[in-house]
Amino acid sequence: MGNFEILNQDSNCPARRGLLRTSHGDIETPVFMPVGTAGAVKGILPQQLKDIGTKMVLANTYHLLLRPGAEVIEKLGGLHNFMAWHGPILTDSGGYQIFSLAPLVRIDEDGVEFTSHIDGAKIYLTPERAIKVQSQLAPDIAMCLDECISCSVPASELERGVERTIRWAKRCKLAHEKKEQQLFAVVQGGIDLSARSYCAAELVKIAFDGYAIGGLSVGEGYDDMIRTVEHTVELLPYNKARYLMGVGRATDIVAAVRAGVDMFDCVLPSRNGRNSLAFTENGPVRLRNSAHTNDSRPIESGCDCYACKNFSRATIRHFFNVGEMLGAILTSIHNLRFYQRLTASIRESLRRNEFDDWAKTYLQKYGNF
Amino acid sequence: MGNFEILNQDSNCPARRGLLRTSHGDIETPVFMPVGTAGAVKGILPQQLKDIGTKMVLANTYHLLLRPGAEVIEKLGGLHNFMAWHGPILTDSGGYQIFSLAPLVRIDEDGVEFTSHIDGAKIYLTPERAIKVQSQLAPDIAMCLDECISCSVPASELERGVERTIRWAKRCKLAHEKKEQQLFAVVQGGIDLSARSYCAAELVKIAFDGYAIGGLSVGEGYDDMIRTVEHTVELLPYNKARYLMGVGRATDIVAAVRAGVDMFDCVLPSRNGRNSLAFTENGPVRLRNSAHTNDSRPIESGCDCYACKNFSRATIRHFFNVGEMLGAILTSIHNLRFYQRLTASIRESLRRNEFDDWAKTYLQKYGNF
Repeated sequence: MGNFEILNQDSNCPARRGLLRTSHGDIETPVFMPVGTAGAVKGILPQQLKDIGTKMVLANTYHLLLRPGAEVIEKLGGLHNFMAWHGPILTDSGGYQIFSLAPLVRIDEDGVEFTSHIDGAKIYLTPERAIKVQSQLAPDIAMCLDECISCSVPASELERGVERTIRWAKRCKLAHEKKEQQLFAVVQGGIDLSARSYCAAELVKIAFDGYAIGGLSVGEGYDDMIRTVEHTVELLPYNKARYLMGVGRATDIVAAVRAGVDMFDCVLPSRNGRNSLAFTENGPVRLRNSAHTNDSRPIESGCDCYACKNFSRATIRHFFNVGEMLGAILTSIHNLRFYQRLTASIRESLRRNEFDDWAKTYLQKYGNF
Repeated sequence: MGNFEILNQDSNCPARRGLLRTSHGDIETPVFMPVGTAGAVKGILPQQLKDIGTKMVLANTYHLLLRPGAEVIEKLGGLHNFMAWHGPILTDSGGYQIFSLAPLVRIDEDGVEFTSHIDGAKIYLTPERAIKVQSQLAPDIAMCLDECISCSVPASELERGVERTIRWAKRCKLAHEKKEQQLFAVVQGGIDLSARSYCAAELVKIAFDGYAIGGLSVGEGYDDMIRTVEHTVELLPYNKARYLMGVGRATDIVAAVRAGVDMFDCVLPSRNGRNSLAFTENGPVRLRNSAHTNDSRPIESGCDCYACKNFSRATIRHFFNVGEMLGAILTSIHNLRFYQRLTASIRESLRRNEFDDWAKTYLQKYGNF
């Protein structure tokens, strides 16, 4: 029995409903993973994540390596105990921070040296160390160390990054010994389709438990992103999970599922929630806005989240206005639930083999089709 | 049937277990009310308050009057709807802010003018307006506007404050029309026992639904506080609820219950929680301390709160260290539960008529007896 099983294949597009098997339970895909950067989805307790319908979360190797350190988490029994989240966890490898913290990074063939954005300490990450650290953190799914490449670099630099990502993936696979932990590789290549083809083909030869598409949603724009995803997915094994890293907006997710993607993570619901921006079926609502001073409506009518069932926009607006934490917490709860409702709708329409029509209607309505 | 009923009278001291009847349910006393200054106990959702064992909360008239304003809350159906807390609520009157915001206050016989600490706007509070505002906020229990007097003022000033508190209480009683809302008066008088006697006697003549002891825990020290509480309680009607405002530490509460007090509120559990200081039966624990970096123990062994059942001190220490909100939230949950466990133990020992011994042991152990 593999770690991934396809439950329904849509007849009109590459989208599929799947079952991902992990050491901490089986979950249906497409799945959205809230981001618990430093071991917590900001402001949200594990019980609340569960109530929201969350099945799986992501945590960041780089941030946890800085503080509190992989040894601390290992001694405390791994990330599940540390975070008090007993469902599946995926950790990224630090590869994204090569991109996002570029000015603090020195990279060579052996690995990457980060200058800590906290205290200037030097953090060295090689493919082997990324695997070692993720073995200490003990998530259900670990990621290979990759070089996340900006979409705007010259072809020669892109090529060098892709080659390095492939060599590093080989070293990660060799170093990976934790049998109960799955290891996913990351396809890079910017928006250059032939670079993506080459990277995917080489990684598939090495054989991983699943494949991620990295280096997107970094400024390339919707059309280039979806085109690259559609192209890359076709090069990946049909019976393995496909994970689009760091994406994204609701429409991005619908379009990527339509291209055959199974897994997503993104900070948008929690980060926007903290900044008072709520997602609704009628578009975003800025709750801090004084228009909501007397607004007795919930954030989104018909939503079944704790915030919408209990609080008016007026109260949440007041909480933001006076600096009460509950403003950020309630809006994050709503946004995270919005994403879980979205992926539940996607899975349901896949189950009924109606996804392709559902997706076209959705994308037409929200402007990306 | 009155609004307060005595269920057990301890045979060895004035402590009693009671039942307070309100429009939003009956609750057993002694009761501890967490403080929801601006309509929220900071970082804690109503469902969490309930899970912690909270039966009743306090909110601050002055702060809610500034933002979002009493009219807004009235339009939204009152504080219960606004806060999404459907148990009993008590609001203070703004009298305490006459003391705590003294430099921003001008007081005369008619009332008190506050200069908003937010934007400098002038807020005028008379006894009649304090009642009107609390009628709009619609808590179960409203407080008379009083003049909270520093314990260090000359006798003449103390006397003037007490006289004014009595005259204002009369005006509040006259202005109070909301039949389903109880009105409590506040006994002032600093630590001058004869001023307390006079104030209590005059307020009892006017006849209120309950009586608070105000103006304590403002720097007078434990011994003076308890002496004043013991003295004042004896002057209050036996069959009415007695509420010691803004108090306090666990030992203060035990000693005040022993003197015959039924109700308490205090910011300590939530404020200290936000600052990483946790209460335990073995004394306070500073969770931010690096001593807890690898500490796999819960905050308090044997505690049944969500934080202790799920998180190690190491994780909570990490949350404080990296600025994750969950540090403040989890420690607040623990501290609030600590106070609810304390009052539950008090009520249980009263039920078994063992409170006086229990209290002596408690106070001996924790250093105030």
